[in-house]
Amino acid sequence: MFEVDKRLVQDAIILGDFSLSRVLLMNDSRYPWLVLVPRIADASEVFELRAEQQQQLWQETNAVARVLKVVFQADKINIATLGNVVKQLHMHIVVRMQNDSTWPAPVWGKGTAVPYTAEQLAQIQARLQDVLADYWQVDKKVAL
Amino acid sequence: MFEVDKRLVQDAIILGDFSLSRVLLMNDSRYPWLVLVPRIADASEVFELRAEQQQQLWQETNAVARVLKVVFQADKINIATLGNVVKQLHMHIVVRMQNDSTWPAPVWGKGTAVPYTAEQLAQIQARLQDVLADYWQVDKKVAL
Repeated sequence: MFEVDKRLVQDAIILGDFSLSRVLLMNDSRYPWLVLVPRIADASEVFELRAEQQQQLWQETNAVARVLKVVFQADKINIATLGNVVKQLHMHIVVRMQNDSTWPAPVWGKGTAVPYTAEQLAQIQARLQDVLADYWQVDKKVAL
Repeated sequence: MFEVDKRLVQDAIILGDFSLSRVLLMNDSRYPWLVLVPRIADASEVFELRAEQQQQLWQETNAVARVLKVVFQADKINIATLGNVVKQLHMHIVVRMQNDSTWPAPVWGKGTAVPYTAEQLAQIQARLQDVLADYWQVDKKVAL
């Protein structure tokens, strides 16, 4: 049975589901940072998914990357699936700015997360719900 | 005109071309580490590629990931496109072992590269040429 790993959920807010992935917002106001978790039990590597699931994951990843780039006027989007600590397959999509606190280093393991205030969180959640409106689970372009 | 960024080439060995990407082996014996550079001028983000090029890049990425996992008995494959320093679009695919020198941290910016000896290099190059035989440029499954 699919369930998001507790270590991912404890640092994040669940925004909703795409066709394939559960969408998490990392609770770290240093960078707009989403994590896609394919709703497949026991997957750890992308190539363990079926071909159409792999394709869907990359489509969802690219869609989020494109939207975040535009909405947050990102200098660069960082995309990664690492999983050295949490084995459950998950894809990071992070907005990077040349003036963010860890640029140009990757974000993982650098400094300490700065949680959103309740007001900031309400604002960014509403914004992301809106700009990703085309992708929430009603999107059934690829049947899985 | 497409040309691999000098900062990528200086730390790497060019192994050959897939349908879309030039394939580099990072000259760092701490981890088998390939970099795919789509042979497209001026691309920086995956979503800037045409849809069929995006799909091809992910196919090539997944193919390399699967092969490296098996051949090197990887504990985990790390996949990332960052580009904060070198803007040219490039995809990292890294074999991670629980006993490698930076586990479980990501590899970027950690420690110092340990170049292969000439003998080690000849050996890993031959092995990669062989295990990736199905994917070198003769593979025209997706026309670009």
